[in-house]
Amino acid sequence: MRTVEYIGKINAIKLINQRALPFSLEYIISSDYLETALHIQTMTVRGAGAIGVTAAYGLAQGIKMGNDKEEVYETLLHTRPTAVDLKNGLDYVMKRANRPVVAAHEFCEMNVRDCAGIGRIGKRLIGQGSRVLTYCNAGSLAFVEHGSATAPMYAAKDDGVSFEVFCCETRPRLQGAKLTSWELSVNGIQNTVITDNSAGILMRQKRIDLVIVGADRIIEKTGEVFNKIGTYSLAVLAKYHKVPFFVAAPRSTFDKKSALGLDSVIEERDTHEVTTMDGTRLMAEESSVLNYAFDITPRKLITGIITQRGII
Amino acid sequence: MRTVEYIGKINAIKLINQRALPFSLEYIISSDYLETALHIQTMTVRGAGAIGVTAAYGLAQGIKMGNDKEEVYETLLHTRPTAVDLKNGLDYVMKRANRPVVAAHEFCEMNVRDCAGIGRIGKRLIGQGSRVLTYCNAGSLAFVEHGSATAPMYAAKDDGVSFEVFCCETRPRLQGAKLTSWELSVNGIQNTVITDNSAGILMRQKRIDLVIVGADRIIEKTGEVFNKIGTYSLAVLAKYHKVPFFVAAPRSTFDKKSALGLDSVIEERDTHEVTTMDGTRLMAEESSVLNYAFDITPRKLITGIITQRGII
Repeated sequence: MRTVEYIGKINAIKLINQRALPFSLEYIISSDYLETALHIQTMTVRGAGAIGVTAAYGLAQGIKMGNDKEEVYETLLHTRPTAVDLKNGLDYVMKRANRPVVAAHEFCEMNVRDCAGIGRIGKRLIGQGSRVLTYCNAGSLAFVEHGSATAPMYAAKDDGVSFEVFCCETRPRLQGAKLTSWELSVNGIQNTVITDNSAGILMRQKRIDLVIVGADRIIEKTGEVFNKIGTYSLAVLAKYHKVPFFVAAPRSTFDKKSALGLDSVIEERDTHEVTTMDGTRLMAEESSVLNYAFDITPRKLITGIITQRGII
Repeated sequence: MRTVEYIGKINAIKLINQRALPFSLEYIISSDYLETALHIQTMTVRGAGAIGVTAAYGLAQGIKMGNDKEEVYETLLHTRPTAVDLKNGLDYVMKRANRPVVAAHEFCEMNVRDCAGIGRIGKRLIGQGSRVLTYCNAGSLAFVEHGSATAPMYAAKDDGVSFEVFCCETRPRLQGAKLTSWELSVNGIQNTVITDNSAGILMRQKRIDLVIVGADRIIEKTGEVFNKIGTYSLAVLAKYHKVPFFVAAPRSTFDKKSALGLDSVIEERDTHEVTTMDGTRLMAEESSVLNYAFDITPRKLITGIITQRGII
């Protein structure tokens, strides 16, 4: 089951409609690059790796349709302006625009290979009977296959290791409950959803052997990890309980230039994500809300970063 | 604004309908003890202190109606079998059954006085510009007036101190977002709702000066605090960031007999609290869920327990 696939015969892109998950598994066939752009924008496809590959195929699709490559590039680039992998995917194909489909395939396979590599490297951390805690969705849905945080789990499962995963639900958008739990279940991995505030007591009860989370961005210079809000709390709890805390990410997630870090201003997202659920108001209109998109975990709280080349 | 009041002229009990909060402030007049029992059972009234006082008045009401006192006692006792304060309230009136309304008034005023005492003692912790983090609802709604964790806030506010409160939303039932934020706003205290997983990064940013939470039960012998799931995580985060962590509770919350503690089996509640929100399914049917009702915080993580007699 791949999140994104290209169908050469009809120059179309096949996507899992992630907005319909976990309630139904629908595939969407996009046969026009403008439609592909819209699917990125409206989050039919989400997750850094998956977006990058969809954009790469979208550019190839647009060029094959006979459109001006610059125009296709610009259209796709502006669908989700903050996604770094989106630009990576587009740039990769743009530089090889004479063979755009081949280039998009290469970019896609690199993504799959990187994730498989994380799995190969990381699977040794998961032993028979291990209890792994994970956060948000750094799963196969966020990439093309394998995922980052989930790659060691799928690789261990392929080796016949039997283990258990706790998925923090991940407020406010519940990607852990909606997506990670769903994809682990589909792949036959035993898992249990918990509220984010239950992680501490589970660690205290010695019911968690290790934590593996993904990353939105890793600052190469300092080792600081930007990831979904709540990752930092989890890292502190793991440190306090002496539970190993791993981040899993392909090398492309490393930011080699930026020195941004713990003093960064943290993006605040629309408060409706917290105050409503599927359109239903959860709290009084008067309540003001702070909705941080991510937090930053310092190096000293991280046991290791699992990449396709080894554990740092 | 009292959560519970007795109207002598018509032998009726006036309750805030807490199930309608925060969307509307409704009062319910119960003129029969059986109706009062039903309101406790169906959580029109909730919160240890508020339940205890309602039960005390309910027993007085039933006796005044001419019913057999044993029968009224038993009926009210079985509305919420785990609430300790419910039994306290009933026993107090039962021992003084010849003057039941006077006894119920006394029990109610003790509750109000205890909470006011916590406010007087605890208010010195809140200075001009303080940023206080609180959890769940240990507010006036959970008692008759003042609340426990909120009592120092209301007392500081009465003294003209200007400060700010962060309310953790408190998954799964969101009492922090629904109730605490609402009652603080109604009482003119500036407050902001955050997801539970944001507490860590706010402490890291030095945006929290102290934490005040309530307690369901405090083990006298060991100082262990039983409270809403997530309290323990918050206590660990506070310890790590050197943020003072206070528990506020009347002396009646102390369990003098039990030696139960960190090895206790933690009650698990219905998973629907996590998997659905106002009837809407949030995650796949297949997802299994662990829904702990509370956790246990050891003494070493607690800076002090604020009671009506002083800070322990």
